[in-house]
Amino acid sequence: MKITVLSGGVGGARFTRGLLAHLATTRSDRGGGTSAEVTVIANTGDDMWLHGVRICPDLDTLMYTLGGGVHEDQGWGRAGESRRTSSELSHYDVDSEWFTLGDLDLATHLARTGLLRSGQTLSQVTERLCRRWEPGVRLLPMTDQEVETHVVVDAAAGGTRLLHFEEWWVRHRAALPARAFVQVGLESASAAPGVVAALLDADVVVLPPSNPVVSIGTILAVPGIWEALVATAAPVVGISPIVGGAAVRGMADACLRAIGVETSAAAVARHYGRREAGGVLDAWLIDTVDADAAAGLRSDGWRVGVAPTLMTDVPATAEIAARALKLVVTGHPA
Amino acid sequence: MKITVLSGGVGGARFTRGLLAHLATTRSDRGGGTSAEVTVIANTGDDMWLHGVRICPDLDTLMYTLGGGVHEDQGWGRAGESRRTSSELSHYDVDSEWFTLGDLDLATHLARTGLLRSGQTLSQVTERLCRRWEPGVRLLPMTDQEVETHVVVDAAAGGTRLLHFEEWWVRHRAALPARAFVQVGLESASAAPGVVAALLDADVVVLPPSNPVVSIGTILAVPGIWEALVATAAPVVGISPIVGGAAVRGMADACLRAIGVETSAAAVARHYGRREAGGVLDAWLIDTVDADAAAGLRSDGWRVGVAPTLMTDVPATAEIAARALKLVVTGHPA
Repeated sequence: MKITVLSGGVGGARFTRGLLAHLATTRSDRGGGTSAEVTVIANTGDDMWLHGVRICPDLDTLMYTLGGGVHEDQGWGRAGESRRTSSELSHYDVDSEWFTLGDLDLATHLARTGLLRSGQTLSQVTERLCRRWEPGVRLLPMTDQEVETHVVVDAAAGGTRLLHFEEWWVRHRAALPARAFVQVGLESASAAPGVVAALLDADVVVLPPSNPVVSIGTILAVPGIWEALVATAAPVVGISPIVGGAAVRGMADACLRAIGVETSAAAVARHYGRREAGGVLDAWLIDTVDADAAAGLRSDGWRVGVAPTLMTDVPATAEIAARALKLVVTGHPA
Repeated sequence: MKITVLSGGVGGARFTRGLLAHLATTRSDRGGGTSAEVTVIANTGDDMWLHGVRICPDLDTLMYTLGGGVHEDQGWGRAGESRRTSSELSHYDVDSEWFTLGDLDLATHLARTGLLRSGQTLSQVTERLCRRWEPGVRLLPMTDQEVETHVVVDAAAGGTRLLHFEEWWVRHRAALPARAFVQVGLESASAAPGVVAALLDADVVVLPPSNPVVSIGTILAVPGIWEALVATAAPVVGISPIVGGAAVRGMADACLRAIGVETSAAAVARHYGRREAGGVLDAWLIDTVDADAAAGLRSDGWRVGVAPTLMTDVPATAEIAARALKLVVTGHPA
């Protein structure tokens, strides 16, 4: 079975880890007879240049989480991290305080930057870095071009200005009202090699509980990707990142507000849309606390699953992945 | 008194620190009546891009030595350094083992790279970094353009190939016979702002005991610098980096051999040349162990000083600076 996942950072990485755990169980239950290949298409809209190095937060979170190196409580960055370089950098007057470059994490940025500067594409570099992390999936950036999400915020004089997403998210904790999101560089970008094929050739496509606006929304905005999702014969199932009217993690509400979507499991489903109605989803998994929303969605023709969706640990997350697959794969064990 | 020093890394930095110590003594002896301004023109031929960051070994050694942050025994790099990032980088297959990026040192490279990438010149960046180190001198890169010393070495098939100087020096410990040195980028380079003026307006110019080939030789090769040294009214005094037929530090003999110059105090003097004879020196300070060489040089018209020249500590180095200045500045206290 070929499974393709569209992923942001922490939520998508944790979901994918659970998915791999579920698939491992399924394989052993069946005596190793079923093999599944998982491809993860990662958002790179949060990527940025900082102090001359290229930082790819979502790719890094995916590598570290799936490769066993992530700071578990934090959900991103490295376990056992230290901040010697970052602390030293603060002695130079170079606006370095808001984004912490951990010493271990920095090695990834340096390796990546050196390879990019030598002319390799982000896809090639990602494959190279994955040789160290062995994430158990094929990890693809959504695009090899630099597409950076910026946030339109109010300026002092009554106008607006653009902030890089990471600056808005990390430095300002998403507290400045976002008027809109802009993917700078999108018009000259295309899906990275293998991305469209991974959608067209998939048996199932999964939208994990990542941020629907700035993570999955950005991936869907890359020319060719939405079209491939619409065209693929594979069913597409999503897991709601909104539970009980709040983002499970992060500040997705600030992002949804900016695009005029209510922070609810049903509203996010309708934002993605049903494939029959021109959207991208065939099925939607929501949390048991949102069971009330299921009836309304179903009456509008949605295939909806209801289950506990909090990714409290790997076994719980494996169970969520099983439930999601069962929604769209006939006979799949849940 | 305006003093301009042409400097490489460790030798030039230690000499300059001694010079400043000497000048401080002179000032206090005279009740603060004499003020001296020191400008250091630094070799940037050893600079390189590594893992996407810009490394300027000689500028860094000068900042750290004069700013009180240097690893004293080593002569370069930071005191209290650690290697977390570098050690982590070795897990990626990116040829990272030969050059150690210390965690503290890396902060300098990142600050510099970010500023360079934002469009600032190396001169501007150096001034900015010096705000933190307060080296007590005006520190100028020899040029704002990228001029990188490469070494011509034998290739396997009987031809030759180019190695970046740092790779030859650090990775191969200068053990591969150097056929020649090439300053890549020199033809489109010019002296950095302030460099020519610092030579023309100087009261004294000093060539410290830096490597005469790849440090001072590279500075002299930058268009405009040799001409300014020939034209300046200031006397030019050099201190021999060769004592008793060997380089005091480093592998200058391998560099001298490549350009066909004997490793001796007299041969290096003749390599620089007397200004009256088209060279750049007015006077040359050699070590007491090389006293025999003084007669020969003097009979050829050289002004030669003989003194202990080993920079064993700051007071000893201050004394060497005093002796050098006394050779060319009438009435200067030694």
